Amino acid sequence: MSAFFGELMQTIARRGRRLLGRQRDTKAFVDGDQKPLAELCADLISIRGEASGVALSARILRRYAALDDAGRLAFFEALVYGFGPDAHRLERAVRDWRAAPDYATASALHLAAEPRRLELLRRLNLAAGGTAALVAMRAELMALLPQHTDFRVVDQDFVHLFASWFNRGFLVLRRIDWSTSANILEKIIKYECVHEIRSWDDLRRRIDPPDRRCYAFFHPALIDEPLIFIEIALDTEIAGAIEPILSTGRWPADADKLTTAIFYSISNCQKGLAGVSFGNFLIKQVVEEVSQDFPQLSAFVTLSPVPGFAAWLKQERSSDSSVCLSEADRKALATIDRPSWWRDDDASGQVEKSLCAAAAYYFLRARNRQGLPLDPVARFHLGNGARLEHICFRADVSDKGLKQSHGIMVNYLYDREEIDSNHEAFSVGRVIVASHMVKNLVPALSSREMTVQSN
Amino acid sequence: MSAFFGELMQTIARRGRRLLGRQRDTKAFVDGDQKPLAELCADLISIRGEASGVALSARILRRYAALDDAGRLAFFEALVYGFGPDAHRLERAVRDWRAAPDYATASALHLAAEPRRLELLRRLNLAAGGTAALVAMRAELMALLPQHTDFRVVDQDFVHLFASWFNRGFLVLRRIDWSTSANILEKIIKYECVHEIRSWDDLRRRIDPPDRRCYAFFHPALIDEPLIFIEIALDTEIAGAIEPILSTGRWPADADKLTTAIFYSISNCQKGLAGVSFGNFLIKQVVEEVSQDFPQLSAFVTLSPVPGFAAWLKQERSSDSSVCLSEADRKALATIDRPSWWRDDDASGQVEKSLCAAAAYYFLRARNRQGLPLDPVARFHLGNGARLEHICFRADVSDKGLKQSHGIMVNYLYDREEIDSNHEAFSVGRVIVASHMVKNLVPALSSREMTVQSN
Amino acid sequence: MSAFFGELMQTIARRGRRLLGRQRDTKAFVDGDQKPLAELCADLISIRGEASGVALSARILRRYAALDDAGRLAFFEALVYGFGPDAHRLERAVRDWRAAPDYATASALHLAAEPRRLELLRRLNLAAGGTAALVAMRAELMALLPQHTDFRVVDQDFVHLFASWFNRGFLVLRRIDWSTSANILEKIIKYECVHEIRSWDDLRRRIDPPDRRCYAFFHPALIDEPLIFIEIALDTEIAGAIEPILSTGRWPADADKLTTAIFYSISNCQKGLAGVSFGNFLIKQVVEEVSQDFPQLSAFVTLSPVPGFAAWLKQERSSDSSVCLSEADRKALATIDRPSWWRDDDASGQVEKSLCAAAAYYFLRARNRQGLPLDPVARFHLGNGARLEHICFRADVSDKGLKQSHGIMVNYLYDREEIDSNHEAFSVGRVIVASHMVKNLVPALSSREMTVQSN
Amino acid sequence: MSAFFGELMQTIARRGRRLLGRQRDTKAFVDGDQKPLAELCADLISIRGEASGVALSARILRRYAALDDAGRLAFFEALVYGFGPDAHRLERAVRDWRAAPDYATASALHLAAEPRRLELLRRLNLAAGGTAALVAMRAELMALLPQHTDFRVVDQDFVHLFASWFNRGFLVLRRIDWSTSANILEKIIKYECVHEIRSWDDLRRRIDPPDRRCYAFFHPALIDEPLIFIEIALDTEIAGAIEPILSTGRWPADADKLTTAIFYSISNCQKGLAGVSFGNFLIKQVVEEVSQDFPQLSAFVTLSPVPGFAAWLKQERSSDSSVCLSEADRKALATIDRPSWWRDDDASGQVEKSLCAAAAYYFLRARNRQGLPLDPVARFHLGNGARLEHICFRADVSDKGLKQSHGIMVNYLYDREEIDSNHEAFSVGRVIVASHMVKNLVPALSSREMTVQSN
Repeated sequence: MSAFFGELMQTIARRGRRLLGRQRDTKAFVDGDQKPLAELCADLISIRGEASGVALSARILRRYAALDDAGRLAFFEALVYGFGPDAHRLERAVRDWRAAPDYATASALHLAAEPRRLELLRRLNLAAGGTAALVAMRAELMALLPQHTDFRVVDQDFVHLFASWFNRGFLVLRRIDWSTSANILEKIIKYECVHEIRSWDDLRRRIDPPDRRCYAFFHPALIDEPLIFIEIALDTEIAGAIEPILSTGRWPADADKLTTAIFYSISNCQKGLAGVSFGNFLIKQVVEEVSQDFPQLSAFVTLSPVPGFAAWLKQERSSDSSVCLSEADRKALATIDRPSWWRDDDASGQVEKSLCAAAAYYFLRARNRQGLPLDPVARFHLGNGARLEHICFRADVSDKGLKQSHGIMVNYLYDREEIDSNHEAFSVGRVIVASHMVKNLVPALSSREMTVQSN
Repeated sequence: MSAFFGELMQTIARRGRRLLGRQRDTKAFVDGDQKPLAELCADLISIRGEASGVALSARILRRYAALDDAGRLAFFEALVYGFGPDAHRLERAVRDWRAAPDYATASALHLAAEPRRLELLRRLNLAAGGTAALVAMRAELMALLPQHTDFRVVDQDFVHLFASWFNRGFLVLRRIDWSTSANILEKIIKYECVHEIRSWDDLRRRIDPPDRRCYAFFHPALIDEPLIFIEIALDTEIAGAIEPILSTGRWPADADKLTTAIFYSISNCQKGLAGVSFGNFLIKQVVEEVSQDFPQLSAFVTLSPVPGFAAWLKQERSSDSSVCLSEADRKALATIDRPSWWRDDDASGQVEKSLCAAAAYYFLRARNRQGLPLDPVARFHLGNGARLEHICFRADVSDKGLKQSHGIMVNYLYDREEIDSNHEAFSVGRVIVASHMVKNLVPALSSREMTVQSN
Repeated sequence: MSAFFGELMQTIARRGRRLLGRQRDTKAFVDGDQKPLAELCADLISIRGEASGVALSARILRRYAALDDAGRLAFFEALVYGFGPDAHRLERAVRDWRAAPDYATASALHLAAEPRRLELLRRLNLAAGGTAALVAMRAELMALLPQHTDFRVVDQDFVHLFASWFNRGFLVLRRIDWSTSANILEKIIKYECVHEIRSWDDLRRRIDPPDRRCYAFFHPALIDEPLIFIEIALDTEIAGAIEPILSTGRWPADADKLTTAIFYSISNCQKGLAGVSFGNFLIKQVVEEVSQDFPQLSAFVTLSPVPGFAAWLKQERSSDSSVCLSEADRKALATIDRPSWWRDDDASGQVEKSLCAAAAYYFLRARNRQGLPLDPVARFHLGNGARLEHICFRADVSDKGLKQSHGIMVNYLYDREEIDSNHEAFSVGRVIVASHMVKNLVPALSSREMTVQSN
Repeated sequence: MSAFFGELMQTIARRGRRLLGRQRDTKAFVDGDQKPLAELCADLISIRGEASGVALSARILRRYAALDDAGRLAFFEALVYGFGPDAHRLERAVRDWRAAPDYATASALHLAAEPRRLELLRRLNLAAGGTAALVAMRAELMALLPQHTDFRVVDQDFVHLFASWFNRGFLVLRRIDWSTSANILEKIIKYECVHEIRSWDDLRRRIDPPDRRCYAFFHPALIDEPLIFIEIALDTEIAGAIEPILSTGRWPADADKLTTAIFYSISNCQKGLAGVSFGNFLIKQVVEEVSQDFPQLSAFVTLSPVPGFAAWLKQERSSDSSVCLSEADRKALATIDRPSWWRDDDASGQVEKSLCAAAAYYFLRARNRQGLPLDPVARFHLGNGARLEHICFRADVSDKGLKQSHGIMVNYLYDREEIDSNHEAFSVGRVIVASHMVKNLVPALSSREMTVQSN
């Protein structure tokens, strides 16, 4: 029934878009709607008839969309204070549980403690385009969190709900290529956040050649909206710099000689889904897909940015007590204060060893309070079971690359044989699995030292 | 992007079916897998790496599928007693909430009270075909509930989860017709539970003629599986009997003269989704679809069975204190004890008035403890905002029809103008909205009397 | 763009069906249309504006569809006598060509000799559903050919046109399985002409099990209509009888042990496309498809009927001068005159050798005037490059099988290494390539003798 | 079965693209293939086995693709001289026809006169991608026609074949919008030949806004390749200039106020299909589609270029005997020799009347030898049944617009009530149907004079 099923889904997509279209012209309607929004919300969760709920949900979402900043603040406050759990019912459930703490009273307690806004959000999802509206609503909520810490409980509820709706079992992996529709491709251009896509030609160079791949996750309820995507270069060796990959003049590699898949960019698309992670799952599924198409591939590596390195190094260089920099290192590193030092091969030669050693130290020894690496990208890939394979010098000499990491990038290697054990070692013992080449850059580093005691 | 989207969905469907195919041959693997199932489940919710979770989820579901009855009992017991909330964490949250009962401690309490089996079920959904497997698992659980009331907490958790996953916002309405694929059509044959479909020809007569329609709800995660479907006859008047609708020899009505859509069968397909209601929503959406195709339609009615009538009437007839049956009625009703009375027009003439009056009483006055009608089908349609329009004598003279309701069927009418107010009247005031014709069958019945005070 | 393309094609399909629907109610319109049909046809080829032609084409086809037998005869007569080439123009072209017979005058002659009905048929194709209507028209024409030999020129023009439109480059091979839509499946049931499909269950047994395959050719202009299809059993050895293949109780063969694809039924679906052959092309493409799915297959054979054998044998037995039957053979063959002889193992044992030898003679030596085998199925497969591999005794004991060939069936083997040379040998030298086993059944047969001189 | 059908077509598309992909790497193979190409062609039409023909067709097309200029010349010469009709057979057919000129001998003559290259081209179409290859082949042939008039017979055969294959009954109209795939959209950019599309943003402005439409014809055998497309602006009045339509800053018109569909660009995409006209058919079908979406539209007009006007006017101005230009006109028209005259409102005011009058004369009176308008675009639209509605001054002040028509554009109006009669009047009587406004620009012009006698 795949054809039937496909058409079924097109039905959703078409209907969804048609309904969204209709909603454009509803300003007049909204203006004349005098009932307070919070009251409408209370109505929505009190009615039993679900189908009436569809119209009411749509009405609430339209009203929400028309709110100004003050209105939105008031709305979220109502969610916090007006749509928590029923206090009486909860008190009663707590009493029952205290009296007889068993599985049944615990279950009743769980239900009693559920804030009513969860049901509200579930019902708002009944409206056409509801899921997208709720994802957008949460993105707006997140922007207010720093100033309004009391909104956090609402944010938790969003995450709770989205984790269920966007369960990885419901996600669909799709290849993005030059036969993908323009409205999706323009989102790829817009959402790319690692190496900016500057034009449609630039995009085409990344998805159309036979040695390039791009994959994205989609969800049936978010029409035409990628959730996360990954860009891949297939090559004859592990890439040590980004420029050759994005270069305009290059020639596709010979299909027979491809040995390596290089994941050079992963971008999340939906701010409102922050905290509902897909990346790990995406990488593993893409490794499967690419392996099927190119069985001869022997290595799956990333070419990843090192966003925290420059800031960390600055601190180390300014600190007298840094244990990771020798006097010689400090002297050599002075070079990177000169503009365009990386264009000068001599200067680069002087700085390379010290800079790479510092980077290795940054990855292997510098830890946060949980005993995890300082670098967020490192935490992501090492947590997924990858190995830190290689530190790449002068690998990203874009302004951004120089600023955040003095041009350093790294390769994380996904070896299907070791992913599980690496993941275990990292998550249980905080072990950072790295290649000998990287480890040798930090002279005294024994494998014992890599394990950091924590909590 | 609807085409893209459609193909995207085909991707899911194909992949899903491929993976399910692979799982067939895993008996050997399962046999050699010695770790206790509950331990595997504990592993699954403890691991952080989600992608490893996919393999583990699949393994658990395969192991579950291979269990015998005793094994399944043990598994569900483990879910009840071994995967409730963390008692210490819950105790702490209760203490905090008692100390300072605010929105934040309530939220923490809600999280602490969540049984761990919810996370387990969410992770089991990661496996290919996971959703279908979990729906099947709950169907098996339900079969055990009468003997194992302690399993109810698990059942509640299933319902909680399914209500979120099968949120009506994610359902897709699709027309079922003669161009639908055979593997779906055979499910329509199998799942029809009101008027049995006896053959492919019988099916074709219900979905192919221009004056017939069938619609079903689907969910993206349950490939090729209808959740619920409805069969519709378009006609020139309100049908008062089922036989002409299902007749083999009939001629399609003239398209220009159609005035009425008759919903003569609604069937739920997935036992495991009991309690997650779609019917209300389905009817309203189908009314919209059919109205678009046939703008000239003026009436949307059901032709519905009355499953509880015969049992109730038997009780009334055997009770000396029945207030609804006069002596004349009792005498007239004796006719229905004769086999094949309905074939005899004279006999039928004698019984008609009393039988219909009794039915009217059954609908309008007989109530359960909540003050709702005794008849479950009546509760469903009246709760949706329909009106009890007509009582149909000798309307279903199949064995089943005679046995459950002495051949009586009824029309519930969906009038788009009154649906909301009817629903409101029914759910708030227990008012049973009925036509004058029906009300007049119960002589002394004033509209005031129709409202029954209840809790 | 395959998704786009797919949707594009759905567009045709939907539009086509919608328009066909509209045409149902046009009887009234047709009745009021007084202009003679042939005049409308003349109008159609005289107008330059193509779009006006669409309406006129549709009108002509509707008028044609409403004709009675006499009307149809008159219509075809008009095509023969009224829509030939322009005589003056043709005479002039002949004169020019005679005066200067070169490539340019020949080309002009070709154009001048084109009967105007070809342009008429091309323009009739403009109407929605035009292609299907023309295929049906030719089927009706063919039925009249035996009585109306002058219609043959029109038939030739149909073939000429259809050969161009149904060029094999435009055909699409599609697998038919249990997820195919019911309206196509019912056509498979209807069009099967080798081994009747008795029910939907019978159909399912042929297309759903993992060791069964069915493929059909479709053409974009004939919506939902298969042109030809083939049924395949995958098995662990070459099948020697049809009953085990169609049996209701069988168990699918183990996928790992499959070695052989048995093509046990090929059916043409469109009478109106007779003479536009697809079968050869279908077999070769199906061999490719099946080989991709099951690379381990080593043999591709048919299990084919022998439709002309019983008639031929009867003639030989009644002829005193037959050289192929010895006295012993004649005696042994008497057995087959007894009803149900094939149920009796002893009787069967007596007849087997003589019957198979006669069959071998029938294939290898009996020839028609062109020096080709008498058996039409043999001509088809041998002409495709197959080898006559095996003569199967008691292989089809259905009434039809006994009647046409005394239960004999044969395997033709498609060996990809020899297809081209076999085809060459057959079409050039009339060589019937057969296995040693078959050849040995005709004692004196040397390979030299297999070649029959023919004009 | 539309979903099935859609998937069926995706199958073609995918397979087609896969096979085309394979053919890329066949250079080595081609180089080693020594048999002369014409011999391969002769083989192809002599073999009976069609499936062997597939491989051979593919081989010939690869060989053809690798030819240099000289090779291509030789190939086409072989088609002219080596693949004409069989001379003996033709001579015999001519003799038979002369002896007894009836429908049967005429039919035989037609078949005998068919050049063998037609069968060759039909068989070449068997190869995957064959249709596209043949369309490309004819484009190359056309480029050689001016120097090689003897190739014209081959060109005629291509047209004959393509007219049959690309029968309008097989074409599919599809809307092009922002959800169309990028590989098709880039072809729209490339093939636009009236008003150049300068970027993806420019494209988006033409297809994405709610008051813009674009439609294209596709053929199932030419995957992802539009044949012809049309760009449409919906507006509140008939547009008199192109710039506002293509402007970057404009705001979509209010959907409720749209009254007019303006066809401002029609582009043929496939050079090799020149002479197989689709434009007429496209316009009529698009009028239907757009009318369905926007029933309130009351006018369908073009905004068309006037490619021949400037050249014609130059001639008139240089000729002393011109009857259409008065002395005052000549003086006024001197203005247009000044660069950028159109920027100057005063200068424009002086020239407007004379220039528009000259244009009216150009359309209404200037005729070619067949009595048809000189302007090719006028011949196209008037031949389709449109009316010349309005002459637009300073309507296209691009370099191209000024050069070809001094900025003049015109509106042709398609009035569904008059299309047929206009078409008839034009094609039979050479009547140029024009609005009063246009006719009044040529003072003495009576409707009688508009009719030009011609053979």
